[in-house]
Amino acid sequence: MDIQSALLALEKTERNLAAINHAGGILHYDGVTAAPRNSAKGRADTFAWLAEQEFIQLTDSQVEESLGSLAENLNELSDNDSIRVRLLKEEYDKIAAVPMEEYVSYNVLVNESEDVWRKSKENNDFATFGPYVDRIVAIKKRFAEYYNDKADPYDVWLNEFERGSSSEIFDNYFTAIKPKLIDLIKEISGRHFPDISFLKNDFPIYLQRKLSKDLIDFLKIDTSRCAIGETEHPFTNGFNYYDCRITTHYYSDNILSSIYSVIHEGGHALYEMNMDESFYGTILTKASMGIHESQSRFYENIIGRSRSFTGYILPTLRKYFPCFEQVDDDMLYRAINLARPSLIRIEADELTYSMHIIIRYEIEKLLFSGEITQKELPGLWNRLYKEYLGVDVVNDAVGVLQDTHWGSGLFGYFPSYSIGSAYSAQMLYHMQKNLNVEKLISEGDTGPILEWFKTGIYKYGATKTPAELIEISCGESFNPKYYTDYLDSKFRDLYNI
Amino acid sequence: MDIQSALLALEKTERNLAAINHAGGILHYDGVTAAPRNSAKGRADTFAWLAEQEFIQLTDSQVEESLGSLAENLNELSDNDSIRVRLLKEEYDKIAAVPMEEYVSYNVLVNESEDVWRKSKENNDFATFGPYVDRIVAIKKRFAEYYNDKADPYDVWLNEFERGSSSEIFDNYFTAIKPKLIDLIKEISGRHFPDISFLKNDFPIYLQRKLSKDLIDFLKIDTSRCAIGETEHPFTNGFNYYDCRITTHYYSDNILSSIYSVIHEGGHALYEMNMDESFYGTILTKASMGIHESQSRFYENIIGRSRSFTGYILPTLRKYFPCFEQVDDDMLYRAINLARPSLIRIEADELTYSMHIIIRYEIEKLLFSGEITQKELPGLWNRLYKEYLGVDVVNDAVGVLQDTHWGSGLFGYFPSYSIGSAYSAQMLYHMQKNLNVEKLISEGDTGPILEWFKTGIYKYGATKTPAELIEISCGESFNPKYYTDYLDSKFRDLYNI
Repeated sequence: MDIQSALLALEKTERNLAAINHAGGILHYDGVTAAPRNSAKGRADTFAWLAEQEFIQLTDSQVEESLGSLAENLNELSDNDSIRVRLLKEEYDKIAAVPMEEYVSYNVLVNESEDVWRKSKENNDFATFGPYVDRIVAIKKRFAEYYNDKADPYDVWLNEFERGSSSEIFDNYFTAIKPKLIDLIKEISGRHFPDISFLKNDFPIYLQRKLSKDLIDFLKIDTSRCAIGETEHPFTNGFNYYDCRITTHYYSDNILSSIYSVIHEGGHALYEMNMDESFYGTILTKASMGIHESQSRFYENIIGRSRSFTGYILPTLRKYFPCFEQVDDDMLYRAINLARPSLIRIEADELTYSMHIIIRYEIEKLLFSGEITQKELPGLWNRLYKEYLGVDVVNDAVGVLQDTHWGSGLFGYFPSYSIGSAYSAQMLYHMQKNLNVEKLISEGDTGPILEWFKTGIYKYGATKTPAELIEISCGESFNPKYYTDYLDSKFRDLYNI
Repeated sequence: MDIQSALLALEKTERNLAAINHAGGILHYDGVTAAPRNSAKGRADTFAWLAEQEFIQLTDSQVEESLGSLAENLNELSDNDSIRVRLLKEEYDKIAAVPMEEYVSYNVLVNESEDVWRKSKENNDFATFGPYVDRIVAIKKRFAEYYNDKADPYDVWLNEFERGSSSEIFDNYFTAIKPKLIDLIKEISGRHFPDISFLKNDFPIYLQRKLSKDLIDFLKIDTSRCAIGETEHPFTNGFNYYDCRITTHYYSDNILSSIYSVIHEGGHALYEMNMDESFYGTILTKASMGIHESQSRFYENIIGRSRSFTGYILPTLRKYFPCFEQVDDDMLYRAINLARPSLIRIEADELTYSMHIIIRYEIEKLLFSGEITQKELPGLWNRLYKEYLGVDVVNDAVGVLQDTHWGSGLFGYFPSYSIGSAYSAQMLYHMQKNLNVEKLISEGDTGPILEWFKTGIYKYGATKTPAELIEISCGESFNPKYYTDYLDSKFRDLYNI
């Protein structure tokens, strides 16, 4: 097969995969924003058909042939084409190595397990869900061997979500931040908490919807290619270059929830929407989770919880909600940065968040090394929450059962949430060399910040690894010091330590 | 191939087709209710992939083989299985007879033509769009020959939308109703029009949304399986037994628009949602368009524009919109039944609606017989509107260019809109033998009406032809007399003729 025909064949496969991904994405988005509540059955069947099509596309014999002939001629390809071939070959090698029956039965198990998890969480019943963790870990270890029998199984899964990463890299990262975080959290725990009583108010949802539009404008999101939906658990899905969706949830008694979910998801959307347009329909749009999280957290925390932002947004808040007349910049700044150890990861503040991740990371490693089984999970979970965060886990529903990830087989995913925050602090440091970030935020002029991300990160899509993107945008390799310095400076100032 | 394996293979094909249909349906629904405005490119590509999959599924050699072995053993199958095999074989024979290149190039032409139509309508420019009509008619005639070279081409397409129908049946139908409609319309045209000034008001959209919920409850729609969306041109899509969507459009200065689109689409939804659950994922859910329209029009016109309904709904309208305090049942009844010849089909009243269809039907027949080409279209259109409805077509945008159907290749579709109204009048007549329909409506107790439709029509899905469904539910064959009697009686009373 000549190079041009092989490239064309691959392109067709990529476009088909993009269509499958798009259809599945819409089905999911619609399912959680618009669908009637008893419609799950039909959706499950259509998801299953799409999964089958994905398998068929990737394992097509023509794909193997095309990849084979291209892999031998990488030096004759353009840089991007050679990366595409490499990434597609990685995907192909993985999926082709898994026996179809095992692939199917794993998907069946995960579907069942997600359902059991949901009910177990509702009933605070770890005993029913627990065995699924062991069964899923066993399969994930076997699949990891199919994928790469020379690597440590847990490293295989870390690498799935953050290309080029490993437990060595994450060990170093978490070892660097853990003692500093624990110390800082302890120091703050004795301090006076700010007044947040003004947040106990009624914020009509139709006004929150208007505020969301203002926030999206502030973020410079192109609304001709991005819509906002409402759902229980906010997320972002960039179906393709031309269509991205962010979601939020409005609570009439909690204005911060929708503000920060819109800004967080908006950061994800900016990344998805500003990759090179020519990557449309190709594997080059498959971004790393850590870099993705660096963007959502940069916008949510570094911008959205900055003192400059409170000055910028307060007049808008007052326009919609008169109760903010009584509030000044400083009160708002302290309120949105309330730091307090707590039980629930997704409600954690900027300072304590990474400790929740460290607990999960340490437990995942022990599960994969076989040092513990599911039986030890609740006890270990509760001990670590006490030791690292000083909180007592009152029951498993708010403890080990709180997240869907393990029931969904997403081992190795959590660490990317934390490393994204660390990336974002390093990006801020280097961005400030050229931009007066605080001034830009206070003036609502986030365009230059977006431009910095576009040229340093977004446009590359998956053509660069996370480590390369840090090198390109920051001019040096990843260093977690910027993250701890950032937290140290911000929270010592906030809590007068 | 033994019968059981052949049945299983077909079942798999049907499930795959249902999944494709579901994914495409959601993609369309999301596209017109939620998607950002510049997202069409990605959607077009994913639609194209789904169309390709549909073709692949239907033309798979195993389908041919399974259908072949089952067709020889129809008497060994259950009634429903034998109907399924027959319907699938019809679909297969049609699609397999069309050369793939022609199928693809037709789809490309229609995509282009829809786009040209949209712009031509905007610019009141028939000359640019016109040639597409001739090109599409030529292809539709060729495809009709592939489908069935013994039948008249136009009959093939009438039959596509209304199984068992033909131009003979429709000729008889339209010949029966046309003179009576023309006379009645003429008689009314000199009469005094009712006062509708109370409808010129501001009806806040958030209150119209609440009213829609009340209407859906009135219709007894199971909202755990049906959601309502907002779009430009309302439609209904039943993706499957578990998930149906109706859509509406809210105008703050036009309360009737959303009320009657919700009731009309609600009628479609009831049909989709009340077929036998065991038909899920099979071709037995593919309903006729005429019967579908009989349901939407029964609910919209026979129920929704009845005197009993005005009595029922007025207190609800007053609750939301104080301007209705000045209105009594009779004023409302006359206002919602304002009959007046007009230019636009989708805005036509119950009395004049079928005349719009007759004009289109007569023109389609002439196009297919070759007696006219696109060049004659605008002149003929304008002449018929003057002759049948007494109105002057001021330009092509509100004349021959108003509907998307011809640009989309949907020749033979229009007649089903009218015959549905005629079915519904016949159903009312027979329903009234057992039910006090007016009393039920005035009490908001539509359950027994729904039950009548469920047992007489809905549950059968596509296992019966429209003609059989009329026989089953009414105990006699289709007779257009009920329709003209119904209109005659209702409008003579309304206009004191």
